Amino acid sequence: MNLKERIEKQINDLSEFTSTPGKGTTRLTYSNEDLLARNYIKEKMKEYGLTIREDGLGNIFGKLEGTLKDAPSVLIGSHFDSVPNGGSFDGPAGVIVALEVAALFAENQLTPKYPLEIVALIEEEGARFGGGLMGSRGMVGSLSEEDFKRLKDKDGVTTVEAMEKIGLNSSLPKRRDPNTIKSFLELHIEQGPILEEKDIPIGVVEAIVGLTQLEVTIEGKAGHAGTTPMDRRTDALIAAANIISQFPGLAIEEENGTVITTGRLHVLPNGANVIPNKVEFSVDIRSSQEEPISNVIAKIKGLIHSYQEQGYRISVEQPLYMKPKGMNNEMVALLKEKSTELGVPYCSINSGAGHDAMVFSDVTDVGMIFVPSKDGRSHCPEEWSDAMDLAKGVQIFYEAAKSLTEVEAK
Amino acid sequence: MNLKERIEKQINDLSEFTSTPGKGTTRLTYSNEDLLARNYIKEKMKEYGLTIREDGLGNIFGKLEGTLKDAPSVLIGSHFDSVPNGGSFDGPAGVIVALEVAALFAENQLTPKYPLEIVALIEEEGARFGGGLMGSRGMVGSLSEEDFKRLKDKDGVTTVEAMEKIGLNSSLPKRRDPNTIKSFLELHIEQGPILEEKDIPIGVVEAIVGLTQLEVTIEGKAGHAGTTPMDRRTDALIAAANIISQFPGLAIEEENGTVITTGRLHVLPNGANVIPNKVEFSVDIRSSQEEPISNVIAKIKGLIHSYQEQGYRISVEQPLYMKPKGMNNEMVALLKEKSTELGVPYCSINSGAGHDAMVFSDVTDVGMIFVPSKDGRSHCPEEWSDAMDLAKGVQIFYEAAKSLTEVEAK
Repeated sequence: MNLKERIEKQINDLSEFTSTPGKGTTRLTYSNEDLLARNYIKEKMKEYGLTIREDGLGNIFGKLEGTLKDAPSVLIGSHFDSVPNGGSFDGPAGVIVALEVAALFAENQLTPKYPLEIVALIEEEGARFGGGLMGSRGMVGSLSEEDFKRLKDKDGVTTVEAMEKIGLNSSLPKRRDPNTIKSFLELHIEQGPILEEKDIPIGVVEAIVGLTQLEVTIEGKAGHAGTTPMDRRTDALIAAANIISQFPGLAIEEENGTVITTGRLHVLPNGANVIPNKVEFSVDIRSSQEEPISNVIAKIKGLIHSYQEQGYRISVEQPLYMKPKGMNNEMVALLKEKSTELGVPYCSINSGAGHDAMVFSDVTDVGMIFVPSKDGRSHCPEEWSDAMDLAKGVQIFYEAAKSLTEVEAK
Repeated sequence: MNLKERIEKQINDLSEFTSTPGKGTTRLTYSNEDLLARNYIKEKMKEYGLTIREDGLGNIFGKLEGTLKDAPSVLIGSHFDSVPNGGSFDGPAGVIVALEVAALFAENQLTPKYPLEIVALIEEEGARFGGGLMGSRGMVGSLSEEDFKRLKDKDGVTTVEAMEKIGLNSSLPKRRDPNTIKSFLELHIEQGPILEEKDIPIGVVEAIVGLTQLEVTIEGKAGHAGTTPMDRRTDALIAAANIISQFPGLAIEEENGTVITTGRLHVLPNGANVIPNKVEFSVDIRSSQEEPISNVIAKIKGLIHSYQEQGYRISVEQPLYMKPKGMNNEMVALLKEKSTELGVPYCSINSGAGHDAMVFSDVTDVGMIFVPSKDGRSHCPEEWSDAMDLAKGVQIFYEAAKSLTEVEAK
């Protein structure tokens, strides 16, 4: 098998670990599918001669030691969880590319000066415990031990209980000393239409948009659908529908690529002939600038205030806030230089999605590349990227990793 | 225990059979709680000397034979299922009142000419299998054997599978020959504010509003919440929110007490950072006249059409349509006459909710009375009616049943 075929095989192998076969990849963190994917990744790490370790969050590390004593590592990786009914590439592509970089180090019997670590991160999507970016936030300490332990999934299962269920040890250290990290490289699918439209296989990320998530709970008053006149109702779903239907307008008026999405919504008690007394929903807000995000939050709070005056009880939590972030200039330059040397066409690009790389940029030098997404689609079973492009990513990261780990020229 | 205390005890006893203790009554048809309530009702029927039978739908009948050979029965009863997180009165109050009428027949050792049958009906609310009024519609044949067997709950469990699970025999007859029914009496809580505001313990129902239920499915296109620009989205929840937020306006402009409710809504895939590609929701429409109902349906279809033109795929099903209905004049007169004789204040009232009585009115003479609902509330844990008022209902039905079954004067 050549590199492209190896990548394709691993994408296919990992896509088997889904709780919704035939309906895309659903791999929630600490689920049985997580365990199967985890064992697969650890098996590959072993095959490529890496020393395996898991931390107290369940992140997986495969390390190739360097010659320098106690030196910080060059990390390469991405996440291996998915959204419900998502695709086979968002996350795993970046983990597989990192594994193949390690494979090239092994094949060529390279000994680096600084250690190389392949990383497979948990719960980037937040599909089980909300918020997202949990593996990286736990590692840099922006998610504290206490906050981590407080998190529960929709069935009330805590992170610690869920970890124990698949045999993970939650008492291991979570935060990692930034001095043990030299740099972080991540490849991710673009999840947008730009690279495909330009017909360019590699985007070198220059900035990541800011993002925030709100959790809104609206409480009204239940009642019988037939006997409560319209003017006596405090229907939580009507309030939610009114607020949500205004999001597209709010986003468009802020410009700067601002997007607002309500992806998750629950109605209670959810019976056809009962007026809903409670609706909970998420609001995901992103923009390339900070100001549009704060404007949108202020406008949503204004809308909510007008419903509070009508007798609704409404609470808003903000489990996640990430500022827009520029990538490290030297890393951007290194990735562009290696692409040029390899003759791989590339362009600069901004990321519309949050990524673990953004979290690591607070503590180390970060570089990130994108590959094209077919039809710009992602987070759905149709999500697809060309293994040829992923192979180009492996080559770029292999060359960059040789520089960063200071492998001696052969 | 006097009659009031007996009623209170039975209301409390039945309210224990809930899958949501402390959060109201949740008793879905053919659930374990159904089985427990069923056994309780059958035990009471036995205690009051009735002969017990269950039909192929799981409806329960307790019969006091009459002296006339093969004569049609006078039926008294209501349903014993509930909405999710509902109250203790909507349904059970009418079943308990019917049982207490049988108790009075037993206590006074009355032998009727026509049989008296106490009836406890299933799935009036439609909370498990949708549509509602299933027990009565199956009995009169407006729900066919085939349609019954096709029904599934939200987990895909069929009616027949669910019946078998609690030991019911779905192969028993379902439709009942109308010639075996002489009349049907039902007491129900009002579920509205009128009787309480007027301070009158009994409402004699003259008409029941028409009602229909729609099931709307909107399909858009999934995508990543961060990387899909607002103008490239086909967000199923935005379309649903726009449509639902217009329902209050549509209802108010139709007058005639028209009400529109979306009580049930599901979002798919329901992840915070995924644009929803599918939303399913119920629409419950009621009015005292037929025209407003058809107007609302036409307007909703117009709204839907405009979204279809924007690239959404939308389907609408109509699992339930009941015309507004007048009650039988002679039965109304009989119930008013008995109230007057007993010195119980009453008024005429229309019902804003659909009831099994409405279904039986197609095949037999039907009479119905309401008792006041505290704060007009229903379908919630706070639902409450005074056992004193229910006792008055027992007395009126006892006298009416003596007339209808032609008990010989003692």
